[in-house]
Amino acid sequence: MKKYSFYIAGGDMRFVYLANSLAADGYTVTAFALSGAEGLSGDVIISGDSSEAAFSNVVVLPLPCDDRRGNLNAPFDKREIPLAEIVSRLEHGTVLVGGMVPKNIKNAAEKRGVPVIDYFEREEFAVRNASLTAEAAVALALEAVNESISKMPVLVLGHGRIGRLLGSMLKALDADVTVAARRYSDLAWIRSEGNTPIEFSRLGGKIGEFKVILSTVPATVLNKDILCFVDKGAVIIDLASMPGSIDFEAAEELGLRAERALGLPGKFAPKTAGEIVKETVLNILDEMGEDDLG
Amino acid sequence: MKKYSFYIAGGDMRFVYLANSLAADGYTVTAFALSGAEGLSGDVIISGDSSEAAFSNVVVLPLPCDDRRGNLNAPFDKREIPLAEIVSRLEHGTVLVGGMVPKNIKNAAEKRGVPVIDYFEREEFAVRNASLTAEAAVALALEAVNESISKMPVLVLGHGRIGRLLGSMLKALDADVTVAARRYSDLAWIRSEGNTPIEFSRLGGKIGEFKVILSTVPATVLNKDILCFVDKGAVIIDLASMPGSIDFEAAEELGLRAERALGLPGKFAPKTAGEIVKETVLNILDEMGEDDLG
Amino acid sequence: MKKYSFYIAGGDMRFVYLANSLAADGYTVTAFALSGAEGLSGDVIISGDSSEAAFSNVVVLPLPCDDRRGNLNAPFDKREIPLAEIVSRLEHGTVLVGGMVPKNIKNAAEKRGVPVIDYFEREEFAVRNASLTAEAAVALALEAVNESISKMPVLVLGHGRIGRLLGSMLKALDADVTVAARRYSDLAWIRSEGNTPIEFSRLGGKIGEFKVILSTVPATVLNKDILCFVDKGAVIIDLASMPGSIDFEAAEELGLRAERALGLPGKFAPKTAGEIVKETVLNILDEMGEDDLG
Amino acid sequence: MKKYSFYIAGGDMRFVYLANSLAADGYTVTAFALSGAEGLSGDVIISGDSSEAAFSNVVVLPLPCDDRRGNLNAPFDKREIPLAEIVSRLEHGTVLVGGMVPKNIKNAAEKRGVPVIDYFEREEFAVRNASLTAEAAVALALEAVNESISKMPVLVLGHGRIGRLLGSMLKALDADVTVAARRYSDLAWIRSEGNTPIEFSRLGGKIGEFKVILSTVPATVLNKDILCFVDKGAVIIDLASMPGSIDFEAAEELGLRAERALGLPGKFAPKTAGEIVKETVLNILDEMGEDDLG
Repeated sequence: MKKYSFYIAGGDMRFVYLANSLAADGYTVTAFALSGAEGLSGDVIISGDSSEAAFSNVVVLPLPCDDRRGNLNAPFDKREIPLAEIVSRLEHGTVLVGGMVPKNIKNAAEKRGVPVIDYFEREEFAVRNASLTAEAAVALALEAVNESISKMPVLVLGHGRIGRLLGSMLKALDADVTVAARRYSDLAWIRSEGNTPIEFSRLGGKIGEFKVILSTVPATVLNKDILCFVDKGAVIIDLASMPGSIDFEAAEELGLRAERALGLPGKFAPKTAGEIVKETVLNILDEMGEDDLG
Repeated sequence: MKKYSFYIAGGDMRFVYLANSLAADGYTVTAFALSGAEGLSGDVIISGDSSEAAFSNVVVLPLPCDDRRGNLNAPFDKREIPLAEIVSRLEHGTVLVGGMVPKNIKNAAEKRGVPVIDYFEREEFAVRNASLTAEAAVALALEAVNESISKMPVLVLGHGRIGRLLGSMLKALDADVTVAARRYSDLAWIRSEGNTPIEFSRLGGKIGEFKVILSTVPATVLNKDILCFVDKGAVIIDLASMPGSIDFEAAEELGLRAERALGLPGKFAPKTAGEIVKETVLNILDEMGEDDLG
Repeated sequence: MKKYSFYIAGGDMRFVYLANSLAADGYTVTAFALSGAEGLSGDVIISGDSSEAAFSNVVVLPLPCDDRRGNLNAPFDKREIPLAEIVSRLEHGTVLVGGMVPKNIKNAAEKRGVPVIDYFEREEFAVRNASLTAEAAVALALEAVNESISKMPVLVLGHGRIGRLLGSMLKALDADVTVAARRYSDLAWIRSEGNTPIEFSRLGGKIGEFKVILSTVPATVLNKDILCFVDKGAVIIDLASMPGSIDFEAAEELGLRAERALGLPGKFAPKTAGEIVKETVLNILDEMGEDDLG
Repeated sequence: MKKYSFYIAGGDMRFVYLANSLAADGYTVTAFALSGAEGLSGDVIISGDSSEAAFSNVVVLPLPCDDRRGNLNAPFDKREIPLAEIVSRLEHGTVLVGGMVPKNIKNAAEKRGVPVIDYFEREEFAVRNASLTAEAAVALALEAVNESISKMPVLVLGHGRIGRLLGSMLKALDADVTVAARRYSDLAWIRSEGNTPIEFSRLGGKIGEFKVILSTVPATVLNKDILCFVDKGAVIIDLASMPGSIDFEAAEELGLRAERALGLPGKFAPKTAGEIVKETVLNILDEMGEDDLG
C-alpha cells in the first residue's frame, strides 16, 4: 500500500489531473470542490465536506490557494468556502501543501502542529512551469504574426527561467532571437545559448527592428519612452506576472498591439501542469521527516 | 528602371503582400480585384478593368487561379470575372504566371502567343510553402493538446516535403517524433534526421501510443481499420490536400477528434507566402528568354 | 532458428563488427580473411578456405570488394586472394552481396545462377553512410580551427546527402552556415533547413568570408579561379570521392590549407558502419524471392 | 584615440590573440615575453623589459598568472621572470588584471595603490569559457568512440556551466543524453533542456549503459565503487579541474579507458579564448572608476 493519502481541495483543471494522476499511481485520493469538473477519474473519492480533510496525510491546496477574499480558489464549485475553515479541521499528523499560501493560513496551520510547505516557492516547480509558459508563448507568437517565424527578428526581454527557455525554443524554430538582460553574466549565457544578447540600456536604438516582443520582466520596462520606438506592426506579449512589463495605456495611445498572457501553463497544458504539482509535492514529502506524517 | 511591370489579378492577402513587395522593390505594379483588401500599398496602381492587363509584362493569377466555375479567384471583389475574359485581352509580349492554371486557360493563352508558367508546379515554391505549412501545423499541434509538447509521442504520416520539415520542427521542440514512410530510403532519412522511422504496414500495433497524429499523405491511409487503434484522447490533423488522409465518417463513429487543416500558408503567414510567390515568379522570369517579354 | 547463414569475406573493421552483430542476432556467421583482426567475436566461425563460402546462404563481400587488382579487399589477411576464385565456388542457392562489385565478378556469379546485389547502390545505405560522413566531418571541422564553431562562418559546397546532413549538424552547433547549390529547389531546401543558400556562380564574391570550407561535390569546383579568393587562414576539407573537389596543386601554390578526407565512416564509426551494412543486407534479403535462397 | 593602453605579459597563444585583437581595435598594446610566439601582429609593440609595464594603463597577466613557483607563466619565453618583480614596478594609475592572481601578488600590488582584478573570477568569463570547453569535449567525444554519436547513450556528470552547455550540444547532435545532478532544481532544468535527469545516488544501476561518460564535477565522484559498474568498452573523459572526478588508479585496475582533458579552451580555440579575455577585461575597465586609471 502507498505511503500517503491525499486530500485535494479546489483548483482548476490542473488539480483534476493531479488527482487523477495520484490515483493512477495507486495513492488514496479524495477530491473536494472539484466534482463539478469534467474528467475527474472514477478512482478519486469525492468529499462533500472539508472537515474530511483531516483523514488524509496530505492536504493539497490549489495555486493560488485563495480567491483574494479569503475563500478557497475553487472555480468548479459555486460555494464560498473560507480557507480558514478548512485549516481549522487539521491536526498534527497532516501536512498542508499549497501554492502561494497566505501568511495567516500558514500561521493558523502551524499553530495546530500542521507543517505548511508552499510548492510555488520550490525551484524545481518554477523551472518546469517556466517550460510550459515558454511553450505556450511560442504558440502565441506563431499565431500572432502573419509571417514565418523562421529568420524573424524576435525580442525576449529578461533572461530568468522563462526568458532563457523561451529564447532556446524560438531559436530551435529558427527565429532570429535577441534577448535583453542587464548583467554581464546573463549576456554571456545568452551568447553561449546561440542568441544575440543586448543590454537593456541599449534597447532604444534597436527595438524598432523586432516583429514580436515577448517580455518576462515583472517591472514596467516597456514604458512610454521606449514604446515610442516600437514598430507599429509589431506584437508585444506580456508574460510577466502582474503588474507586468508594459504601460498598456501608453501602448494604446501609440496604437501598438500589446496583450497580457497570464496563467499559460493552466490554459495550454493543464495535464502536464498537474504532473508538475504532483512531482513537486512528492519531492517535498520525500524530504520531510517521518515525524510530520502521521 | 526595373525590367518588368506586373499586373496582379485577384487572390487573397498573399497577393496583396505580393503586390506591396514587388512595388517596394521598385517594380511598376498594377492590382486588379484587390482594392477591397485592407493594407494594399499606396505604391500599387489600382486597375478597375482587366483589359488593362495587356499593358504589363507579367500577369500574375492567384493560387488557385479560379473559383472552380471558371471565374477569377478574387475573394476581395464581389464581381464574377471570367478568367477567359482576362486571357482574351493578352497578346504576345506578355507572360502569364499562375497557380494551378486550368488547362483551357493555358491553351487559350498559348494560342495568343502568351507563354504560361504555373508557379505551383515549381519545386522551390513547393519546398518553401511546405515550410510554412509545417510551421502552422506546429502551432495547431501546440494548441490542440492539453500537455507539454516536450517528450510527447507525436506521429507524422508521410515523409514528403511537409512531413520532413514538420518532423524536424517537432523534434526541435523536443517532441518524441515518429515518422511513417514506405520506402527504405525514406526510413533511412528519417533516422538520419534524428526521428524514429516506422513502416506504414506496422502502424497498427503502434498508433495507439500517439497523442497527436499529423498526416501529410494525399490518400486515405487513416481508414476504419487503422483508426480503431487510435487512442480516444488523441488529436488527428489532416494536412493533405483533398480528399485528404482520413476517413472522417469512420473517425466520427469512433468518437475520435479529427480535423482538416487546409491552406495553412495563406492563413498563418500570408506575408511570407506572398514573398514566396514573388521569389518564384522572379526565378521563372530569370529563366525565360528575352524574346518572351516584350 | 534464423533463416540465413552468412559468409563474410574480407574487409576492414566494419566487417568485423558486421560479423559480430549478425552473430549476436543469432545468425550463423562464418568469417574469412578477418581472423587477423582484433575483436572478432567468439560466436563467429573462422574459415580458412574460401571454398567453404558455398555452404552459406549469403556471401558478403566488403566495400569496395577488390583491391583494384582483382584480389579480395582484405587488409587483415596477408594473402592475395583472387575474387574470381571465391565466386568460382558458389552455386545457385547462394546470394552474393557486395559493395562496388566489379562488373566481371557480377557476370561470373550470375552465370553460375548466383544473384548479385550491390549494397553500395542502395539509397538507404547511402543516406545512413552520409550521416556518418557528416558527423566525422564535424569532428574534423572542430579540430581544424583555432576558434569556436559557434557563429563561425562555414561554407558547405553541395546539397546532396552529405551536404544536407552536414549543413544541419553544423547549424545545430550554432555555426553560421552557408550551403552552395545550383538548383532553385536546393536553394529553397537550404533556406527551409535554416541555413543561407548561395548559388555556385556567386561564390567568388563571398568565399573569402569563410573560415572552414567543406566540399561534397565530386567535380573540381574549387579550381584556381575560385581558390584565389579564399582566405589564407581558412581550412578546406574535401569530402568528395576521387578525384575530389579541389585543385590541390593550385591550393598549394596559393599557400592554402587543404586536405582530403576519405573513407570517414570506416575510420570514425566502423561499428555503426558495420550496422548499416547489416541493415541494408537484411533489407535486400527481405525483398528477394524465396527461390533465390536455398 | 582609444582610452587605454595595454601591457600584456606572458601567457600562451590566447594572449597572442588577445594582443592582436586589442591592437586591431585601435588600442596601444605592448607585449612582454610573447615575442617567441608565431603570429604576433606587427601592430603590437615588443617590450624586452618588464619595467616598461608602468607606462601602460592596464597590465594583463595570463591565466594562470604564475608557474606555481612565483614566476610569470610565459611558455614563449625561456627566462624565469618573478611576478613580484613586475609588480614592484607598478604605480597608482595602472590597473592590474590577471587570471588566478596569487594572494601575495594581489597584496603587493594593492599596497602600491594598484587595483587588482581577477578576470578568472568573473561570471561572464566562466560562462563563455565553459562554452569552449563544451565544444572541445564534443570533439573529443566524437573522436573517442567507434560509433555514431546519434542516439548514443552519453552521460554527463554535473550540471554546472560546462555540464549544462555540454548536455545541450550533445543533444543537438542527437545523442541520447543523461545528465547527473544532485538538486531537484537541477534535475528540473535538465528535463526542461530536453535531456534525461538522474540523481547521483541512482547512478550505480544505470552507469553501465553509457558509451561515453563526461565528468565536470571537481570531486572524485567516479571512485572504485561506481567505476566497477562502468562498461568495459566505455570511454571516460574527465573535464574537471584537478584533482578531477576520477580515481584513475581504480580505473586502470579495472581496465577502463579514462583520460583527463584539461585546458581545452587554450588548446582547441585559443583565438576565441583570447577574445573572451579581451571582452572580460573591457567589461572590468568599464565598471571601474575614472580615478583608478591614470
